[in-house]
Amino acid sequence: MKALEEKILREGTVLPGNILKVGSFLNHRLDADFLMEMGKEIARLFAGDQVTKILTIESSGIAIAVAAAAAMHIPAVFAKKNKTSNVSGEVYRTVVHSYTHGTDYHVVVEKAFLEAGDRVLLVDDFLANGKALEGLIDLVEQAGAVVVGASCAIEKGFQHGGDRLREKGVAVRSLAVIDQMTDDSIVFRPSDSM
Amino acid sequence: MKALEEKILREGTVLPGNILKVGSFLNHRLDADFLMEMGKEIARLFAGDQVTKILTIESSGIAIAVAAAAAMHIPAVFAKKNKTSNVSGEVYRTVVHSYTHGTDYHVVVEKAFLEAGDRVLLVDDFLANGKALEGLIDLVEQAGAVVVGASCAIEKGFQHGGDRLREKGVAVRSLAVIDQMTDDSIVFRPSDSM
Repeated sequence: MKALEEKILREGTVLPGNILKVGSFLNHRLDADFLMEMGKEIARLFAGDQVTKILTIESSGIAIAVAAAAAMHIPAVFAKKNKTSNVSGEVYRTVVHSYTHGTDYHVVVEKAFLEAGDRVLLVDDFLANGKALEGLIDLVEQAGAVVVGASCAIEKGFQHGGDRLREKGVAVRSLAVIDQMTDDSIVFRPSDSM
Repeated sequence: MKALEEKILREGTVLPGNILKVGSFLNHRLDADFLMEMGKEIARLFAGDQVTKILTIESSGIAIAVAAAAAMHIPAVFAKKNKTSNVSGEVYRTVVHSYTHGTDYHVVVEKAFLEAGDRVLLVDDFLANGKALEGLIDLVEQAGAVVVGASCAIEKGFQHGGDRLREKGVAVRSLAVIDQMTDDSIVFRPSDSM
């Protein structure tokens, strides 16, 4: 998505540890109009796939998941990091390893909100090593539902999580894929190679 | 908002401890089309107030904040619970007491994302004792910005946080206010009394 690549170049900042800061529009301050455009692009990429539900993970996936769900007129579900007392009833549960925080965390979805007939599109703000998406895929499979594909706003191609998922047959269509990133340059993967 | 009251009666469940579960559309599964309608209603309620920014708090405020921001074509900012290593730079910081979890937690917003000229509308999914909104007001005041008002989807009127804020002069306009709640009945405050 050309407009997203331009926005990353204009507003993004590269920090030590391969961190790309895009807090000005994607995951702290939210550029609502631009989020809705990204949502429409995700809807376009998966228009033929009879998606019934978006699945994401709190917190920073929620905004783009809502935008995609609004564009597709379907519900979104966000998996919860397991600390709240407000999740009751039966849940699907999985473990995700966070490289950012150096810990494992539990993620849950109430069983009522993922159904065997669902065709699920996974959405998130970032795709790096793919651990969060793998956790979401596990939840979908526990529910007996189908993973239609995954769409993240920004994929760090050089961390290879997206390509590993593609090799397993998951239709990963990110809005922007960064193949190289240094303090003073960001190189995007041509979109016709995805 | 009549449609929201009807949805609460149809889909909500009252749990012990004055908990109203609306995970089917508001804060676990997200009814995207309905969220966008709520966002439009918030935009209508504050149409004359020259709002420049929505401020909410992660995680469950993000969805409705995005919907309101999209309807008003302005950005939203979500305050972060202070655990992430991805918030860098100078932050405004406050402490919020959570009755649900029985703890205090720190909440931060990067200084770059709240500006002295901002006219800020606070948005959240629930308003109960008002502690989260008080924390957000503190952040806005630290930035030298103006609090235009607050709009939450569901206000638990019987916990009086909203009324305390109204007494202090904050324009609190919730989409549905529950004045009484038991296992088998929910009584809403008439909207012309707000």
